Amino acid sequence: MAAAASTVAPAAAQPLVRLSVSSHGSRSSDRLIPGVTLSSLANRSLRSSPSTLRLLRCRQSVRSNGVMDPVRASAVEAFETAASETLVEKSINTIRFLAIDAVEKANSGHPGLPMGCAPMGHILYDEIMKYNPKNPYWFNRDRFVLSAGHGCMLHYALLHLAGYDSVTIEDIKEFRQWGSRTPGHPENFETPGIEVTTGPLGQGIANAVGLALAEKHLAARFNKPDCEIVDHYTYAILGDGCQMEGISNEACSLAGHWGLGKLIALYDDNHISIDGNTNIAFTEDVTARFEALGWHTIWVKTGNTGYDDIRAAIKEAKAVKDKPTLIKLTTTIGYGSPNKANTYSVHGSALGSKEVDATRLNLGWAHEPFHVPEDVKNRHVVQGAALEAEWNSKFAEYEKKYKDEAAELKSIMSGELPNSWEKALPTYTPGSPADATRNLSQHCLNALAKVLPGLLGGSADLASSNMTLLKMFGNFLKETPEERNLRFGVREHGMGAICNGIAHHSFGLIPYCATFFVFTDYMRAAMRISALSGGGVIYVMTHDSIGLGEDGPTHQPIEHFLSFRVMPNILMLRPADGNETAGAYKVAVLNRKRPSVLALSRQKLPQLPGTSVEGVEKGGYIISDDSSGNNPDLILIGTGSELEIAAKAAEELRKEGKTVRVVSLVSWELFDEQSDEYKESVLPAAVTARISIEAGVTLGWEKFVGSKGKAIGIDRFGASAPAGRIYKEFGITAENIITTAKSL
Amino acid sequence: MAAAASTVAPAAAQPLVRLSVSSHGSRSSDRLIPGVTLSSLANRSLRSSPSTLRLLRCRQSVRSNGVMDPVRASAVEAFETAASETLVEKSINTIRFLAIDAVEKANSGHPGLPMGCAPMGHILYDEIMKYNPKNPYWFNRDRFVLSAGHGCMLHYALLHLAGYDSVTIEDIKEFRQWGSRTPGHPENFETPGIEVTTGPLGQGIANAVGLALAEKHLAARFNKPDCEIVDHYTYAILGDGCQMEGISNEACSLAGHWGLGKLIALYDDNHISIDGNTNIAFTEDVTARFEALGWHTIWVKTGNTGYDDIRAAIKEAKAVKDKPTLIKLTTTIGYGSPNKANTYSVHGSALGSKEVDATRLNLGWAHEPFHVPEDVKNRHVVQGAALEAEWNSKFAEYEKKYKDEAAELKSIMSGELPNSWEKALPTYTPGSPADATRNLSQHCLNALAKVLPGLLGGSADLASSNMTLLKMFGNFLKETPEERNLRFGVREHGMGAICNGIAHHSFGLIPYCATFFVFTDYMRAAMRISALSGGGVIYVMTHDSIGLGEDGPTHQPIEHFLSFRVMPNILMLRPADGNETAGAYKVAVLNRKRPSVLALSRQKLPQLPGTSVEGVEKGGYIISDDSSGNNPDLILIGTGSELEIAAKAAEELRKEGKTVRVVSLVSWELFDEQSDEYKESVLPAAVTARISIEAGVTLGWEKFVGSKGKAIGIDRFGASAPAGRIYKEFGITAENIITTAKSL
Repeated sequence: MAAAASTVAPAAAQPLVRLSVSSHGSRSSDRLIPGVTLSSLANRSLRSSPSTLRLLRCRQSVRSNGVMDPVRASAVEAFETAASETLVEKSINTIRFLAIDAVEKANSGHPGLPMGCAPMGHILYDEIMKYNPKNPYWFNRDRFVLSAGHGCMLHYALLHLAGYDSVTIEDIKEFRQWGSRTPGHPENFETPGIEVTTGPLGQGIANAVGLALAEKHLAARFNKPDCEIVDHYTYAILGDGCQMEGISNEACSLAGHWGLGKLIALYDDNHISIDGNTNIAFTEDVTARFEALGWHTIWVKTGNTGYDDIRAAIKEAKAVKDKPTLIKLTTTIGYGSPNKANTYSVHGSALGSKEVDATRLNLGWAHEPFHVPEDVKNRHVVQGAALEAEWNSKFAEYEKKYKDEAAELKSIMSGELPNSWEKALPTYTPGSPADATRNLSQHCLNALAKVLPGLLGGSADLASSNMTLLKMFGNFLKETPEERNLRFGVREHGMGAICNGIAHHSFGLIPYCATFFVFTDYMRAAMRISALSGGGVIYVMTHDSIGLGEDGPTHQPIEHFLSFRVMPNILMLRPADGNETAGAYKVAVLNRKRPSVLALSRQKLPQLPGTSVEGVEKGGYIISDDSSGNNPDLILIGTGSELEIAAKAAEELRKEGKTVRVVSLVSWELFDEQSDEYKESVLPAAVTARISIEAGVTLGWEKFVGSKGKAIGIDRFGASAPAGRIYKEFGITAENIITTAKSL
Repeated sequence: MAAAASTVAPAAAQPLVRLSVSSHGSRSSDRLIPGVTLSSLANRSLRSSPSTLRLLRCRQSVRSNGVMDPVRASAVEAFETAASETLVEKSINTIRFLAIDAVEKANSGHPGLPMGCAPMGHILYDEIMKYNPKNPYWFNRDRFVLSAGHGCMLHYALLHLAGYDSVTIEDIKEFRQWGSRTPGHPENFETPGIEVTTGPLGQGIANAVGLALAEKHLAARFNKPDCEIVDHYTYAILGDGCQMEGISNEACSLAGHWGLGKLIALYDDNHISIDGNTNIAFTEDVTARFEALGWHTIWVKTGNTGYDDIRAAIKEAKAVKDKPTLIKLTTTIGYGSPNKANTYSVHGSALGSKEVDATRLNLGWAHEPFHVPEDVKNRHVVQGAALEAEWNSKFAEYEKKYKDEAAELKSIMSGELPNSWEKALPTYTPGSPADATRNLSQHCLNALAKVLPGLLGGSADLASSNMTLLKMFGNFLKETPEERNLRFGVREHGMGAICNGIAHHSFGLIPYCATFFVFTDYMRAAMRISALSGGGVIYVMTHDSIGLGEDGPTHQPIEHFLSFRVMPNILMLRPADGNETAGAYKVAVLNRKRPSVLALSRQKLPQLPGTSVEGVEKGGYIISDDSSGNNPDLILIGTGSELEIAAKAAEELRKEGKTVRVVSLVSWELFDEQSDEYKESVLPAAVTARISIEAGVTLGWEKFVGSKGKAIGIDRFGASAPAGRIYKEFGITAENIITTAKSL
């Protein structure tokens, strides 16, 4: 591909530097522009970008006139530039310099992307997108995702110019500081107007696929021939880094498959990543790949300056209804910086004061740091309010005509759960048939689908193993987007990130997704974003131990329970039977700002006496005890499929005259949140004879069994054999508990 | 795409069923074929696959002759089939029925892929590949990877027919049983002849990229104009599942970029995955995508029966030297099964005895289960020995002419480390300048590169942040494959799996790879395979805590230390300064069957008194202590960048008259492996006043601080701010240690 600098269209608008003398003559002569000293200007070496060349020509002509020192003259000239720029150019430069100045003040951050993407960002936010800055959560807003999240100053600047209260100029000055609303990468939970949490590359574009999926689904369910009540676009900006990540290929393959026509991704093709020119690692034909994925593609070669080309491309993209569109925009990273543009040095570091000065001069931006001209700010406050008001009227009409649909849509928009929804969950008695918790999970999902209008989800090509099909619905496909079974294919990572997008689209959308528990390793980065960003995704993870048997160690999770117990703000739940599975779903549905991982068995498990939904809600509770006075001889603690084993061992030990308590520790996190009093009532400090049993690593169990107790578990990889044999060989048995108990 | 069944070429070979009467007349009349009862034959419904149609025609003609009961006749006829088949067809059917029978006996496994891929597998192993069954580790062998690892019975059958000792017929009968050499997915550590461990989809094709990279690199380094001593191909079979996984796109993008011309991937295009027809989730144009990635592509529409087409495609692929090749072979999953072929039900379940009988009949395979005709086995023992002998002679010649190169190559082949290699590691004194461990790591890498001929690696587009460049080498690129700096681009998952391939190519190749520690979440599945498969990859993970500062919580690992401490067979090392970094590298290099994760700081750290390489080798050790008699008042335990804080707090507390021991717990795993005596000497049971400090989760530290100690850590996500501020706000400070100590 041609380097960006050589593809600037001759007709493209450029900042012009005129030969008029500034009226700002009151400033001291050695600091004509704030922060620009004559010596810094004299020392800098200018490269031959078009604007720089023009500037050099100007300076040369001044020199030939002999009127004044050319460096000084050009600096002075720059004062006048802004006034003669178009408003678009002025806005774009405001964005660029907000990014430059914020990164400079923080001495940390990524100025390069905002400088290169300011044109496409500005055109999107100022001319294309529909939103209301004063209500960042207006349901029908267009969604924007900065997948290349390191360039977040672009987004903060755009929100500021649009008129969002969440990003004031003071916030921008506090970029990357403790407690600010402008953290180092976009975080939806810190900054209203940011839709999702990005930064880890590739996540954002996959989130955008989820947002566009949600729109297509809701539009298909709720729109009427006379009223398109759901109708917005999803835009994303992604860079070379996002393109290289496998997750983006997964999600974009699905976007093409699903025909998400209202998804428009702007690819910032700047040829530079942290290691330098992308040609050292990334020489594939990206647009050809996207065409293979079923996307419409457009190449704008003039991404720096071809505003009309950008506008035309977005217009074309919007006209393509049956395919998502990738607009590749060739840009220059750090556009405007005479010495650092088009190099990796401008990617992730402050420009440095000299180069900031040089860039000010080069782009003709004579303002103080953080200057925002009056006419480029609060641009969308009036228009945004009008858009929302118009939509509100439309919704009022809709509500009159389509009462039931409106009620359902309202609950999806608000996240308010229907009354007594939890009564739909199945209940069990010890007489109910034994079953695998993955099957019990399917009963719960199907029961919930009847009462929760926002529940939708699916599996990464394991629906019939994970037991995740909603029987009353068909498949969400290109031609049947009103359906609620999502078919993700073997794309775990994309699946997780798409579900994050769905979760953050509307408060009442409750996405679930499924694979074998061990394959959380494929999607852990997306799950961490669920946790961090407060996306209440339900992760239905079956085949949760060596109990899956013959598939062997590549498929048997060992360390996974603990690996999620230590991840902040995510609930790890391992139900033991039907009531606990129902309890796990109750917890998962109620936790809309905290994702849940449900670890479920492949193998059949009995319905245990003593289990309950209420118990699960406390995380840990007593399922049986034959002692009195909160003082059993022994406490056995189990989770999931090993709770049955603990219960069996307890029976045997009781026969031998011991008093034994059996505790289900279905969720460590929920148990931790209980009062000390409650915890003492379940695990009294005085009882130090404790044994835990779980088909996973023992590390971490010290917390509950203490230094005098024992943890029975598995501290090696699994094995390929029938499940019963592996349990026996690994000592995950009642016999082992009994032997261990006697040794205590 | 057309369904596979309709693309069978008319000229293609098919099993023929003749009208001769069997000589095996001694069998009882109601069980003509073992396991095939007349009733089962009578009840089955035959589909109209070409071979079935032919069979039906035969049966009808028998009926019209009135000679015998047609069902019985056709069953009898089948006995004669094998003798008249070509040897190729016989081999292919042997493979199919070994898979069918093994899965049937285990009542577990995946027969569908081996039945469909037997032709391509057989042609590869019987006609194309160079290897020696009696020495599975012969250096110059062609490598084969079954990326669709669930189809492992294909590979076991191929190894058996070729003559490998590792897969006897008894092993095949023990498929998926405890302790067998034929586990449920291919595991290199169980079965010589299996190159890598696959099963989790997409890993294998990425491993294959690593294997091919290793070949290209070594060939470029060691081949001479008169002697191509390194010269083999890498073949892989991958399915739809592998194609959907993002990791495969990452790795294949790199393969195209690197021009790995000797990588040939056979894509089993069977349209079926677990959820049914792939058209519900996977409608992209795969070959167009690969062309966009820079691959040569070929489509064989007759993958079931077009043996000559398969041969021609592989020949074409081998002729393309500058690009890897994807051969898409349209096949039928479960080929030969009259009722289950081309359905998901044959993917991952035993066929069931009735369908096995029907398939025997349909393919004309009248043999007992597990029958292997004499003329199709041990096919490559003689040829393989000759190939290796020929190469050995060649190597002897090479050694005479190129002594130094031969010595270096020998050490790469054998894995024997050069004498005193560890003396190359830098040493430090407390007077050495403070530095970030990521920089100290770079000194180690560059020192080791001079003495370890097999060291090569790189970063996922963070070389200048991870500090991983080998300064004496250039970039491994298409035209410069002799160089050792790998540029992975932003493809963490592919990077890890490619390194697994490199590690398993030759015993002496030592791959390292790097990213920010938090992004291990992107590559965890590959890292787990390193651990499981015994691939001694060195994971150089920098920016290992909140100490990275402003990038914020998306970039700050919190739970990651523990998440690797609980993963079996992987070493988590967190060095505190220069000597500990050197120690970590010593451990990592020595552990060739166990990967290492080195967590390294972004921020500067002082060179601490008392740290040592020997200490690191023990995992935990005392760096300072002013007590006597192994009985300090207090033990402070730190790791990595927090060891400095522990040391500072100790100084303060000692000033106040306490005796304080400071322990560096740089690797929990290594410390666990020490004798009880040693452990007691470091952490005496009698001293219960213990405080740990680490910028990560506290769960798990109970093991070392006990119920009376305290763990100082971080049990929430991080924050965006300068590092010092976050440390202070989160209480990761000497002051907090001192306050906590006083509370004990």
